[in-house]
Amino acid sequence: MILISLYFLGIVAESITGAIAAGKHKMDVFGVLMISSVTAIGGGSLRDMILGHYPLGWVKHPIYIITVLVASFLTIIFIPFIKSIYKIFIYLDSLGLVVFSIIGTKVAMDMKLSLIVMVISAVITGVFGGVIRDLFCGKVPLVFQHELYASVAVISSLTYIISTYFFNDESAMIITLISGFVVRLLALKYKLGLPYFKVD
Amino acid sequence: MILISLYFLGIVAESITGAIAAGKHKMDVFGVLMISSVTAIGGGSLRDMILGHYPLGWVKHPIYIITVLVASFLTIIFIPFIKSIYKIFIYLDSLGLVVFSIIGTKVAMDMKLSLIVMVISAVITGVFGGVIRDLFCGKVPLVFQHELYASVAVISSLTYIISTYFFNDESAMIITLISGFVVRLLALKYKLGLPYFKVD
Amino acid sequence: MILISLYFLGIVAESITGAIAAGKHKMDVFGVLMISSVTAIGGGSLRDMILGHYPLGWVKHPIYIITVLVASFLTIIFIPFIKSIYKIFIYLDSLGLVVFSIIGTKVAMDMKLSLIVMVISAVITGVFGGVIRDLFCGKVPLVFQHELYASVAVISSLTYIISTYFFNDESAMIITLISGFVVRLLALKYKLGLPYFKVD
Repeated sequence: MILISLYFLGIVAESITGAIAAGKHKMDVFGVLMISSVTAIGGGSLRDMILGHYPLGWVKHPIYIITVLVASFLTIIFIPFIKSIYKIFIYLDSLGLVVFSIIGTKVAMDMKLSLIVMVISAVITGVFGGVIRDLFCGKVPLVFQHELYASVAVISSLTYIISTYFFNDESAMIITLISGFVVRLLALKYKLGLPYFKVD
Repeated sequence: MILISLYFLGIVAESITGAIAAGKHKMDVFGVLMISSVTAIGGGSLRDMILGHYPLGWVKHPIYIITVLVASFLTIIFIPFIKSIYKIFIYLDSLGLVVFSIIGTKVAMDMKLSLIVMVISAVITGVFGGVIRDLFCGKVPLVFQHELYASVAVISSLTYIISTYFFNDESAMIITLISGFVVRLLALKYKLGLPYFKVD
Repeated sequence: MILISLYFLGIVAESITGAIAAGKHKMDVFGVLMISSVTAIGGGSLRDMILGHYPLGWVKHPIYIITVLVASFLTIIFIPFIKSIYKIFIYLDSLGLVVFSIIGTKVAMDMKLSLIVMVISAVITGVFGGVIRDLFCGKVPLVFQHELYASVAVISSLTYIISTYFFNDESAMIITLISGFVVRLLALKYKLGLPYFKVD
């Protein structure tokens, strides 16, 4: 089932980004595992709590959280051998963002919620794991200042919703995954962003 | 229905304060919309999640969130033309505080919860949108250090509870709205506050 | 009933630590009461919201929150007369940590959740009150950098789970309480910690 594969892809990607972010703040192994877990499953958990969608995925299927912990632990072990960590961080984070946006949209769609709630569900699932990660590391959440970050969640969500009218569910997911990932990478490469707003 | 009007008044007021606060941190348009939304509906959402009061208002009635987004967007457009932004911020925030305290009290009252839970519900609804806004902007939440801020939520909640014994529901709301707003403005004008507590 | 006594012990201990932490940031009396309450009941509330375990304890039994408020208020009054506040803070916080870990484990156990969710429930209950306290005070949550802090929650949870196979519930609680408290104090005394992880 492609949705499950996507989900595992997303939580592994985000738990690695969580471990890297935690490592930048000199935390002990346990702290890293916690930040990793929150990054990987925090957005989805918050979405489920907001939508009253119980039980939460990882509470029902502990294999999800075990996967996150293993991925985080392996990151700690192997990261000293890896170069260009920042690039890996960016790619994985972009992947996680698009995957989680698809899943967030689908959860709200299956609950027969309205269009705007589907999109908000995508944004919460896609970006709030990272928001909580940044808060725990004592930083202003970067999502609020980034090039097309949360916007990619919106674009992915709308792409997926529209695609389901024309294609079957699995094709819609793959179309969204590829196009969302490309949009995010283009935004990064060309520093595309929304206009800034500043009050003096 | 006066409650609905009050609710719209509250979320519009708070979404404007959220947009202004976000603008002080140079965020992109999307970041502003997110901070605005969290400020306007964060307190009520947290209250509903704590009380198990599902579905959340804006999930059921997406018009609430659309209102917030429109108010936030209009703020971005029109704020360059406005003087004395700080004063507007303070008035709107005070209005939102009192309105949300009334609504928080009423939700707990309708769930037949105890007196102290009604008051806590008012405080959560009234101040936590602002608390989350401040956390997202990387600041110590000002509510914990402000002149009679959270206290106004308590006073409004008690005023409303007591008023419902003597008046009908709508009159109780109007009495609370006016008296709470006046107390808050007096507290600001005369810098009234609770005694401070300091551990060395 | 030993569980109830433990629970009161835990919330009183943690509300005192919350009041002390708030006092270090010069907050008004109301801010102190709020930080105290969040520290004492925040971890358990978050756990219940994550597990869908409604109604929350203090919503159903307002005596819990009244206890927290009274303990916090008494702390404000009596703390000027007390020496070595830091030591008291550490002992109380350690006590609260172990007590809440036991309770978190038991809640998940009674809901027949899996082993790993029991342990996570212990960690959430034990440490997240303090995490939210630190966020509200504008600090990087210390739990992520501390000597065997969250690890004590894991150790206590596992000790309790294993003990219930060999002893009755109350004995298991007492065994866990004593051994967890001793492990935490030894970790503090000898600065035991997990290895650190750092990404350059």
